[in-house]
Amino acid sequence: VAIERKTREQVQAGLKDLPGWTLKNEKLYRELKFKNFVQAWGFMTQVAMLAEQMDHHPEWSNVYSRVEINLTTHEADGISQRDLDLAGKIDQVLARMDYS
Amino acid sequence: VAIERKTREQVQAGLKDLPGWTLKNEKLYRELKFKNFVQAWGFMTQVAMLAEQMDHHPEWSNVYSRVEINLTTHEADGISQRDLDLAGKIDQVLARMDYS
Repeated sequence: VAIERKTREQVQAGLKDLPGWTLKNEKLYRELKFKNFVQAWGFMTQVAMLAEQMDHHPEWSNVYSRVEINLTTHEADGISQRDLDLAGKIDQVLARMDYS
Repeated sequence: VAIERKTREQVQAGLKDLPGWTLKNEKLYRELKFKNFVQAWGFMTQVAMLAEQMDHHPEWSNVYSRVEINLTTHEADGISQRDLDLAGKIDQVLARMDYS
C-alpha cells in the first residue's frame, strides 16, 4: 500500500489536535526549548527510540537546549499520516516530561 | 580567563590535524553518513556525552543516517580551541566506530 500524501486541508484538520505544531515549508514543524542540554538530549533520546520503532524518522536539529523538528514523508513527497502520528507521539513524550 | 577566538590562520593550522573537517560559515563543519539511523544515533549519543562532559556543545542536525555538525564558540564569537578539541574528540569516536 502506497503512503498517501495528505492534502493541505487534511493537514490543517490534523493540526487541530497538535497545538504545538505548525505547517512550515510543507513540513510539520515544532520548535522546543528545554532547561539545558541534558534535558533536550533526554527528550531526543525518547523520540529516537519511538521513531526507530515506528520506522519513521524526524529531520531535526539541536543547539544546546533548543530542538527543532521537521516531519515529512519522502515516499509520499509531503505530509502523511505517519507524520501526524509521530507528532502525536512526540507530544506524549513532552507531556510525560511536564514540558510546557 | 576569556575564551580566545582563533584567527583564520590558526583555524587553518588546526584543520591540518582534522582531515574530515572544513571551515564553513565561520564554523568547523563535518558531514557524516552512517549505515542507518541506529548507527547515526549511536554516534550522536557518544558525542552528546562527551560534549556535556566538556561543557561545549555542537550545533547539529540529523536526517535518518546523516548527521551534520557545526562547531563554534558563542563566548568567543568564532572558533576557539574548544571547537578544535571537540572536533578531535568526535574523530576519536568515529575511529572507535570504524567509520570511514
